[in-house]
Amino acid sequence: MSQSADGASLRPATSRPQRHAGPQIDHRKLENGLEIVVIPDRRAPVVTHMVWYRNGSADDPPMKSGIAHFLEHLMFKGTKAHPQGEFSQLVADLGGQENAFTGHDYTAYFQRVPREHLAVVMKYEADRMVNLVLSDEVVAPERDVVLEERRMRSDSDPAAQLSEAVQAALFAHHPYGLPIIGWRHEIETLQREDALAYYERFYTPENAILVVAGDVEGDEVERLARETYGKIPARGAPPRRVRPQEPEPRAHRLVTLSDPKVEQPSCERVYLAPSVRTAEKGESEALEVMAHLIGGGQTSRLYRALVIDRKIAVAAGAYYMSGALDMTRLWVYAAPAPDVSLEDLDRAIGETLDEFMRAPPTEAELARAKTRLIADAVYAQDSQTSLARWYGAALATGETIEDVSGWPDRIDAVTAQDVVDVARKWLDRKRAVTGFLMPELAA
Amino acid sequence: MSQSADGASLRPATSRPQRHAGPQIDHRKLENGLEIVVIPDRRAPVVTHMVWYRNGSADDPPMKSGIAHFLEHLMFKGTKAHPQGEFSQLVADLGGQENAFTGHDYTAYFQRVPREHLAVVMKYEADRMVNLVLSDEVVAPERDVVLEERRMRSDSDPAAQLSEAVQAALFAHHPYGLPIIGWRHEIETLQREDALAYYERFYTPENAILVVAGDVEGDEVERLARETYGKIPARGAPPRRVRPQEPEPRAHRLVTLSDPKVEQPSCERVYLAPSVRTAEKGESEALEVMAHLIGGGQTSRLYRALVIDRKIAVAAGAYYMSGALDMTRLWVYAAPAPDVSLEDLDRAIGETLDEFMRAPPTEAELARAKTRLIADAVYAQDSQTSLARWYGAALATGETIEDVSGWPDRIDAVTAQDVVDVARKWLDRKRAVTGFLMPELAA
Repeated sequence: MSQSADGASLRPATSRPQRHAGPQIDHRKLENGLEIVVIPDRRAPVVTHMVWYRNGSADDPPMKSGIAHFLEHLMFKGTKAHPQGEFSQLVADLGGQENAFTGHDYTAYFQRVPREHLAVVMKYEADRMVNLVLSDEVVAPERDVVLEERRMRSDSDPAAQLSEAVQAALFAHHPYGLPIIGWRHEIETLQREDALAYYERFYTPENAILVVAGDVEGDEVERLARETYGKIPARGAPPRRVRPQEPEPRAHRLVTLSDPKVEQPSCERVYLAPSVRTAEKGESEALEVMAHLIGGGQTSRLYRALVIDRKIAVAAGAYYMSGALDMTRLWVYAAPAPDVSLEDLDRAIGETLDEFMRAPPTEAELARAKTRLIADAVYAQDSQTSLARWYGAALATGETIEDVSGWPDRIDAVTAQDVVDVARKWLDRKRAVTGFLMPELAA
Repeated sequence: MSQSADGASLRPATSRPQRHAGPQIDHRKLENGLEIVVIPDRRAPVVTHMVWYRNGSADDPPMKSGIAHFLEHLMFKGTKAHPQGEFSQLVADLGGQENAFTGHDYTAYFQRVPREHLAVVMKYEADRMVNLVLSDEVVAPERDVVLEERRMRSDSDPAAQLSEAVQAALFAHHPYGLPIIGWRHEIETLQREDALAYYERFYTPENAILVVAGDVEGDEVERLARETYGKIPARGAPPRRVRPQEPEPRAHRLVTLSDPKVEQPSCERVYLAPSVRTAEKGESEALEVMAHLIGGGQTSRLYRALVIDRKIAVAAGAYYMSGALDMTRLWVYAAPAPDVSLEDLDRAIGETLDEFMRAPPTEAELARAKTRLIADAVYAQDSQTSLARWYGAALATGETIEDVSGWPDRIDAVTAQDVVDVARKWLDRKRAVTGFLMPELAA
């Protein structure tokens, strides 16, 4: 889907004039399939170097949930040339930062270092794209680390457990319903052979996107990339991006989790909604504006209705997760004031949404929302890492550079009618899963 | 798991004396892996001939939901030797009956014919185990037939839609959450190549169980089987019986479907429960007795409490589906009297179950339930087809002949304490999905 697939030549990312012109992105491709994105940022002599693989937890093979995330851990176990710990030590010695993350649709590794050290981190990152050494001695203890991570973050946190159950109910068929970290009983079965098979299938130049942001030129990055990543032969297997799709939802689902550890009850509704990649033209942007109008901050409809006017909630909001390869999610949530039941709060959320669909936003409301969304995006670009992450995540989920750079203009074009139309179309209870988190089950 | 896996020799099915001695089953195995089960029934000169394949909808490959059921349809499309319609016409000409069915764990084909025609139906059934001819000309129209079947049975029936959504919520990870007929958007993609690949993988002698009930001897059936099924070479691929397993449920889920076509609202609770194959010793039998005490007929706790005493329901019952390769389901259901809300009815169900857990069944109650369950099983054996189907389904889901024939004794051994123990252990709301079917959503 990415426009970058059509060739390796240098070309400017955007050709038409833009009100909110972003950085001029340099986008290339090596012969082995590796995409290269260079984002200019000359404010400081540092670079952010990221490699994005087009595979995330939603690509985990059947009965191997958690393998993408497990392999992210194992990628720090060293190679023959650079044993475990050497790469991280190098980054630390250079005064840099490093991190890695696994999403539903991608896995990414990054380092931020002084500009003059870009070459050496590329050398190390390219080395572990192909030379990872995994022995049972490192795999088994790391599996225990992941199981402990799961115990800490999910199994002992009622809110995380509810979130897992809500996602599993929303995506009963699509693998977005799997927790990124994996189900415990499947993590427990992951072996060295599974990790190696996964590594060999997905850690390939044609499955990767190199993103470099900072005080560098495209030609220099390409030259360095040719000396490192360019030496890795193509594997001949294109990215695998076909997953089971969710059937059309027919029934509303309410997921209730009670646990004595819960101190603040809360309720959420999660709607199955199109992502920027799967939506019809303009719909994703209208959903973005709609979510902001409904639940972005203290001037939003939900906050005003539930927290300020009716005083039945202590928090309320909404959030649309636009970026996803397949169908995505729109959250509406609230936390009840003392002595307010979740049933009453949920009913009040429904009333507020119904009212929003009946009464379109005023022009002032709409303009304020769009200005704020666009300003937030501009502010985010002020961080080199955020900027690199934005482009990397977008390209790894099938968007183009033009999709990213043109986003402010598309937000600006959203009308009040567009917003009401998407609200009526997508805020349908049949499409939603509601989650109730409470200290104990109602009788 | 099946004891039959250990050899091909003739051996009696049961060796210890039994109070409820069932038929003396003859159990053999051919060199190509085909299991043969012969069930004596000399009351009439007819035979029931069944072939069970150890693959059902829960073995459908990813993104191919519905393929097991689709192939069941396609198995009637003929072979080179016996073109479409010939086999069915033969059975009709012989005054026989035929049928086929697809379950989560198996697919089966059967014919009931006068005894002297057993050889010819075996010849035809063995022929289509290996010589099925599929052209695009027959596959595409049959796919439309299946889609129409889905439209009639599921897509236009709110109760069926709710059932699909409840199963999908209960089994978010295990493929029992897939409808046997498949999701519409996946059925639409099934091609001739998919059907042939599936046929070649699963329609093999080592994946099949031949069950013959009637006025026949084991030696004769074996002789006929050698002349037909015995000619088919083993394929070398053992049955595939490994599926993703459901994680431990953490949250209760309520699935609500409203549709103006609903005339009688209803509610059900479906608990994730162990099957006879996955349960600890005695637990499945205790669950069977418990389900009968709670909801088997008009003397059951639920019926008496909700329909007779409180008059808030017009129907109420419970059902435990013991036979399944993996975890299974226990249903509790009720239909409200006019002007009773589903919330109130569901609460009353909960109260009745709680009371059951507090007050164990009396000895008289327990004895009556066990007598009734065992009698029902004995009556079922009176039908040759039911008897053959019972053994076939059990063997196809990993039970042994001894498991089936010893079932009445195991039911008889269940104590009041066993029943209360399994109720307390498994009737946990966290393990359940509740389904509400109603004409319109509550406000």
